[in-house]
Amino acid sequence: MAMHPDRLLPADPGVREIARTLFAEVQDLPIISPHGHVPAQWLAEDTAFGDPTSLLITPDHYVTRLLHAQGVSLDELGVGRDLSADQSRAAFRILCNHWSAFRGTAVQYWLEGQLADVFGLDVQPGPDTTDAIYDAIDAALQTPPFRPRALHDRFGIEFLATTDDPADDLRYHRTLTEWHGTVAPTFRPDRYLEPGRPGWVADVGRLGEVAGVDTGTYTGWVAAMESRREFFKDHGAVSTDHSHRDARMERLAPAEVERLYSAAQSGRITQPEADTLRRHFMFEQARMAADDGLVMTLHPGVHRNHHAPTHEAFGTDVGADIPVALEFTDALQPVLSEFGTAAGFQMVVFTMDETVYARELAPLAGFYPSVYVGAPWWFLDSPDAMLRYRSAVTDIAGFTKTSGFIDDTRAFLSIPARHDMARRRDAAYLAGLVAEHRLSLADAVEIARALVTDNPKRAFRLP
Amino acid sequence: MAMHPDRLLPADPGVREIARTLFAEVQDLPIISPHGHVPAQWLAEDTAFGDPTSLLITPDHYVTRLLHAQGVSLDELGVGRDLSADQSRAAFRILCNHWSAFRGTAVQYWLEGQLADVFGLDVQPGPDTTDAIYDAIDAALQTPPFRPRALHDRFGIEFLATTDDPADDLRYHRTLTEWHGTVAPTFRPDRYLEPGRPGWVADVGRLGEVAGVDTGTYTGWVAAMESRREFFKDHGAVSTDHSHRDARMERLAPAEVERLYSAAQSGRITQPEADTLRRHFMFEQARMAADDGLVMTLHPGVHRNHHAPTHEAFGTDVGADIPVALEFTDALQPVLSEFGTAAGFQMVVFTMDETVYARELAPLAGFYPSVYVGAPWWFLDSPDAMLRYRSAVTDIAGFTKTSGFIDDTRAFLSIPARHDMARRRDAAYLAGLVAEHRLSLADAVEIARALVTDNPKRAFRLP
Amino acid sequence: MAMHPDRLLPADPGVREIARTLFAEVQDLPIISPHGHVPAQWLAEDTAFGDPTSLLITPDHYVTRLLHAQGVSLDELGVGRDLSADQSRAAFRILCNHWSAFRGTAVQYWLEGQLADVFGLDVQPGPDTTDAIYDAIDAALQTPPFRPRALHDRFGIEFLATTDDPADDLRYHRTLTEWHGTVAPTFRPDRYLEPGRPGWVADVGRLGEVAGVDTGTYTGWVAAMESRREFFKDHGAVSTDHSHRDARMERLAPAEVERLYSAAQSGRITQPEADTLRRHFMFEQARMAADDGLVMTLHPGVHRNHHAPTHEAFGTDVGADIPVALEFTDALQPVLSEFGTAAGFQMVVFTMDETVYARELAPLAGFYPSVYVGAPWWFLDSPDAMLRYRSAVTDIAGFTKTSGFIDDTRAFLSIPARHDMARRRDAAYLAGLVAEHRLSLADAVEIARALVTDNPKRAFRLP
Repeated sequence: MAMHPDRLLPADPGVREIARTLFAEVQDLPIISPHGHVPAQWLAEDTAFGDPTSLLITPDHYVTRLLHAQGVSLDELGVGRDLSADQSRAAFRILCNHWSAFRGTAVQYWLEGQLADVFGLDVQPGPDTTDAIYDAIDAALQTPPFRPRALHDRFGIEFLATTDDPADDLRYHRTLTEWHGTVAPTFRPDRYLEPGRPGWVADVGRLGEVAGVDTGTYTGWVAAMESRREFFKDHGAVSTDHSHRDARMERLAPAEVERLYSAAQSGRITQPEADTLRRHFMFEQARMAADDGLVMTLHPGVHRNHHAPTHEAFGTDVGADIPVALEFTDALQPVLSEFGTAAGFQMVVFTMDETVYARELAPLAGFYPSVYVGAPWWFLDSPDAMLRYRSAVTDIAGFTKTSGFIDDTRAFLSIPARHDMARRRDAAYLAGLVAEHRLSLADAVEIARALVTDNPKRAFRLP
Repeated sequence: MAMHPDRLLPADPGVREIARTLFAEVQDLPIISPHGHVPAQWLAEDTAFGDPTSLLITPDHYVTRLLHAQGVSLDELGVGRDLSADQSRAAFRILCNHWSAFRGTAVQYWLEGQLADVFGLDVQPGPDTTDAIYDAIDAALQTPPFRPRALHDRFGIEFLATTDDPADDLRYHRTLTEWHGTVAPTFRPDRYLEPGRPGWVADVGRLGEVAGVDTGTYTGWVAAMESRREFFKDHGAVSTDHSHRDARMERLAPAEVERLYSAAQSGRITQPEADTLRRHFMFEQARMAADDGLVMTLHPGVHRNHHAPTHEAFGTDVGADIPVALEFTDALQPVLSEFGTAAGFQMVVFTMDETVYARELAPLAGFYPSVYVGAPWWFLDSPDAMLRYRSAVTDIAGFTKTSGFIDDTRAFLSIPARHDMARRRDAAYLAGLVAEHRLSLADAVEIARALVTDNPKRAFRLP
Repeated sequence: MAMHPDRLLPADPGVREIARTLFAEVQDLPIISPHGHVPAQWLAEDTAFGDPTSLLITPDHYVTRLLHAQGVSLDELGVGRDLSADQSRAAFRILCNHWSAFRGTAVQYWLEGQLADVFGLDVQPGPDTTDAIYDAIDAALQTPPFRPRALHDRFGIEFLATTDDPADDLRYHRTLTEWHGTVAPTFRPDRYLEPGRPGWVADVGRLGEVAGVDTGTYTGWVAAMESRREFFKDHGAVSTDHSHRDARMERLAPAEVERLYSAAQSGRITQPEADTLRRHFMFEQARMAADDGLVMTLHPGVHRNHHAPTHEAFGTDVGADIPVALEFTDALQPVLSEFGTAAGFQMVVFTMDETVYARELAPLAGFYPSVYVGAPWWFLDSPDAMLRYRSAVTDIAGFTKTSGFIDDTRAFLSIPARHDMARRRDAAYLAGLVAEHRLSLADAVEIARALVTDNPKRAFRLP
């Protein structure tokens, strides 16, 4: 099962040779991870990981969804409950028994990359090898080289952003400041921007307490947001992250904001009104971004918790989120007309609706200095989609206005494999341009290096 | 005009060699055709086919539409009328004279496949060869080896599903039970689910008569449907088929169903109400599917009879149907939330809107055990679209949750060429993965074989 | 920086060899440019071009948008104002300093093509070469071989359509009749079809004056349009061009037209009413097209002047136009049901929403004799998008119902590079089909030649 050194590089011998040259230039560069979901606590406390299942299967919705699609219950995988040692081993066996269902998927690549490169295992997962693999990983995890900080350094991570609630006290990030100082929080205020959501009143109230302002009024809400953004910035945050159903942001008249905010506070807001108010809230976040310089990243367009019984039994982020079509041109017009050329403002836009790359995002990034096209996201974080992305965007906007890769993962051990895939596929794409005499090899080398260094630094305004 | 043995395989010599190996594994496997439109009567009565035009041109809307686009009138091709012997010969000449218009299309491939492989002709269609070709086919069709049953066996068809009206008495299928027992009906109730359609009241009345229940009430409609589904199942049906404008299914409150059903029965239902009731009817079909285990297949999103004068003069299915954009994530949420993990329920979703493959269908099939992504359909049943489909779906959902090829054709003699194309293009796609070290050759062989055997059997629950 | 002779041809050695053969067949064929924006005045007056910046940068929104996206102000590039000699030189330096931002874009290809093939320069643009390049171009432009007519002939342009206001007196075209007689106007009536636009009343009034009819009534509007179309046709026009937000055309009842027309004339029409009336106006243009035989070309789906401050400061066509999603199947149904098979009617449909190629446009062109699929347009006029276009369209509609390349440019000197790119990419696509044995080499040669000769002549009904 050893990973082939030429994996994911183009099949044509001539193009492959070029791609090898390009990949060699970037293979060992440090990892910059400006957006992801690794808990800061892991690195702050640096305690050993648990068993293989609770590390590699249970919390990774990329894995659980594909097993669920094969008829496996999430319960057996430990979702929403603690597994005994025997149950963990049984869950790992389920994965190995279904290994053939992962063939050709990005998840296969990441898992095999972890087994081979992180744990040094060269056996193919399957019924006969599951116990050996489980035992090997389980043993390794108890040793110092597999503690979070040791892995972080072994992976060559230069910058790592987490994703955090605005009310978070960021204690773990403070601890980490004394370590490398390269683990930054990200301000993710979704829950406070959805006034139609049950719990919004209480959440906003708690945010007010944390910020020391009364969020019973809209003015208080703004003050709390500004205060917490500043707090995050002081702790090293470079960006905010937003994931709502659509991408629209639109400023309301003050009186209308007051009316809707009061309705929301009293729990009498309708869903259409709540959407309207959320779009104003988002416009206001953009206004704050233009002021404080935090990069605004958008991850819209997901129908979350699509399967109601799964949501009730197992909660969120378990693999039951399904993308929907998106529209950006009209949705972002008001906010870009206002802040699109403001010096402080910057926006990185991600999508799972590929149709918008050539039609909307590349044209927007090809005009607005503030707009960057985000790397292929979530379901699109995969070998073929990465090439389609470059093909759709490059002709129109070139390379400089793309974000560089983000891993967006909570699967800490998969980070090297994910960046490896992106670097190989960018090398593959660039090699094709060189082979077709659309780019010189020297330019391609420069671009390949920039895509893993300059691009994320510029798009996310890294220090 | 002999078909090249390497046709449709990748151009790169290394990848082609792998593709040859894969294709050799599947080239001669039996054909499984779980969805199509061949009349059961042909095989039941086994009478000789008529002239070349009435077999190869007139009933095949893939052919007639492209000739119509070149300015040929459907009338000349025999659509909607009987042609004399001279007129049939003239129609065939029209096809041969316009042969260059078919270059690069899937239709060219299927027609050339039929001429070469079914009739053994090695001349290129054109003005000089039309009579020779016509005469050769005409003569062959009168001989026993070209009777339907002989061709069926020569083609190596292991399973063949037809598409039938719920009121059909399935007499031909009963006859065929005594033959191979592998020709199954498919329950296609569209007309009874569109209460805004002229003729709905009469159609539903007749269905009630056939089922022996009074369909004047909604309860009767449900009973008739359940009874006819059971009747089809008893005759070997494995699936139901549904082709409405959109894919939405949504349960209504009982009182609302009663109100709308009464309005429909009295002919006073509005189109929006009729759509609402149709979506409830579809939800009810899904409920029945969960009970009786018939696989639900969806073929939505067609603006049928786009050109009104053609519809008036020539009727339906003559090549004037144009696809529209589709949405599945929201549309299927209610039904999947209810039945998506039910043991009896299974759904195969087809589309002509490719944008939904990576955005919606692969994610749905990558979570719900009941959902399968249907093969590229109708306009997408073509060499390039087949690769785009695999590229869009595989990264996200792998191979196991795809339906395997369906030919969906009434052009009986084109069935081998259609399956041949699909097998070659799947070999081409898999060879690319092997060449890029994303899949081992052994795994690719296993997948190639599964795609023409296990996958359709699993997706359509074949016996 | 010399352009490689194999540029844009496929990387695989075998396929490239075929592509070379195909490209050699078309490389030197005359240029047919049936849709573009070169001012007729340039050729009529044949005065020398100004400085390099005002020729190559300022008026080309493809260039200005990408520089703007890098943070350059349009002001510095001379948009909306006259530059001094020093400022022109400084603007050119900005371009050269940002050359790396153009890597991989179509704009890089066109600019390098102009430098190399039009001006014979073999230096790479950059900080060190900007003055040398500027001086070389500046000097060349003052010489007779770089006058518009000399370049026109050197470029081998056989037919060139301009785009003109219906009220234009076409004096320059009349002058050009005495020259080659191959520069034709195109009737572009957008402004007179948007009754909600400020200035519509005055514009329509002026059109009436030019046509000698009273456009205060709808009858007058129709008469003016018919008269001006005839005038254009008499001056060699072969087509009309239309670029509205959506593609819908729908006939209104006469009384409703009268009501809306009066409302528009009195300035009291709402935007929804104005859209409704515009769709009727478009239906009426189609009716006139069926009568007078001018080909109707559609370029819909752009959110123009997306950034309000840029619009206010610099006006239109400066690079701030962003595409939106489109729908054609339903939108064109009424007009195609009425005129789709009429002998006089012909329509070429362009899009920047690629999703409609396989889903809607190829199926429409594959049924209606009057419908042609336009070449990849604007943001899609690029190497990768051209292959995606052929891949999406060919399987379904073949080659004969595609428009052939249009350059759609006001950048006169880029015309050869643009056609060169299209010819190379079509050769690349065809070579792939030959290599996969989907087309014979002889057929591919015939198609390659037809795509640059017969196809545009047929789609645009050239003389």
